[in-house]
Amino acid sequence: MRSAASSKVKPRRARGVRTREGILRAAVDLASIEGLGGLTIGRLADELKMSKSGLFAHFGSKEELQLAAIDTAKQIFAEHVTTPALSSPEGMPRLWELCNRWLSHVEDRIFPGGCFFTAASFEFDSRPGPVRDRIAEVMHGWLKMLGRTAHSAQQAGHMKANIDPDQFALEIYSLAIGAYWARELFRQKKATGDTRASILRHIVAAAAPGCPKLPRVR
Amino acid sequence: MRSAASSKVKPRRARGVRTREGILRAAVDLASIEGLGGLTIGRLADELKMSKSGLFAHFGSKEELQLAAIDTAKQIFAEHVTTPALSSPEGMPRLWELCNRWLSHVEDRIFPGGCFFTAASFEFDSRPGPVRDRIAEVMHGWLKMLGRTAHSAQQAGHMKANIDPDQFALEIYSLAIGAYWARELFRQKKATGDTRASILRHIVAAAAPGCPKLPRVR
Repeated sequence: MRSAASSKVKPRRARGVRTREGILRAAVDLASIEGLGGLTIGRLADELKMSKSGLFAHFGSKEELQLAAIDTAKQIFAEHVTTPALSSPEGMPRLWELCNRWLSHVEDRIFPGGCFFTAASFEFDSRPGPVRDRIAEVMHGWLKMLGRTAHSAQQAGHMKANIDPDQFALEIYSLAIGAYWARELFRQKKATGDTRASILRHIVAAAAPGCPKLPRVR
Repeated sequence: MRSAASSKVKPRRARGVRTREGILRAAVDLASIEGLGGLTIGRLADELKMSKSGLFAHFGSKEELQLAAIDTAKQIFAEHVTTPALSSPEGMPRLWELCNRWLSHVEDRIFPGGCFFTAASFEFDSRPGPVRDRIAEVMHGWLKMLGRTAHSAQQAGHMKANIDPDQFALEIYSLAIGAYWARELFRQKKATGDTRASILRHIVAAAAPGCPKLPRVR
């Protein structure tokens, strides 16, 4: 998947990007590395070797560009993580697959700077406004999806009854973002693999006798 | 602790800040809210109603200001978290106290935007340079302290022998930053309290029979 991700981005940049979709993909890549706050029409114009007026025709303001980049990143995330995980059986296997694919999308550098939304969350959490609100909305949706899946797992008898599914979702979410933190900051590629094992241990420890077979914990 | 933190910052700002220490405390507060990347001499001069040339006399460049702010934040963190936790008994009680105080420093708004270093880590992890290096150094030190404490807990017979102390440290670290994420992004004040219980459950599950008494899990 790494080579697929690279082939999607680099040649398009090299040829020059003119479609709205292509511009937004480049904007997401840039924001993923330099931060969403640094994603301005001027900076993107430099990066794409386009005129600022050309970009203004697509996006009237920095804020509009940032909001459109968030929506594009959400689509990319769905394509690589949530949509494929929906083909796993409901309950604990799907919860595991959501986590597994979430870690893989960072390992496969779907966004060149790591996890786009984790970085954007910490960057904007103290900056009120539409950009912060959109990030919070997307992240709330993702955490709710994990929570609903944990809840289904419990309803299906896959998860112990004394566990709070929403707090459990936050716990596995936290383990994943800790891995992204260590992987990006310390350039420890193995952090995501180690955390995949931690999350699986956490899921196995929460499993009830009715849980379908899960991968073996390392 | 909340009122102590407030009384430290606000009156100093209101009077105008002229000492290097006072300027740096205001710089840390500003960076904590707006991001370390946005901490420029111009922006800080605006905030403190000082001349840019006055600030240039203290800090020759934006980068020097950002590095000095990191060092100040590290001192503040030590004062509120690591130094007081060293008075707890070695091993698992100290590990718990480090986590407990780390969560408290966010609840008590020691930095007005939440956890200064978690935010700075995600902001700078993809931006090579001295600022990124200094953040990574501080965070590496903090994670190593948690890891060494977990290792001591294992040596003392407080922690099960089949646990990797470094991965255990990353797991509890991750649970804490997940709480900061939820607390700041969703303005869920209870996230840190809920995660305090999650961390304690994680520590209790890892405890060996020789572990001293820990607080009760909610």
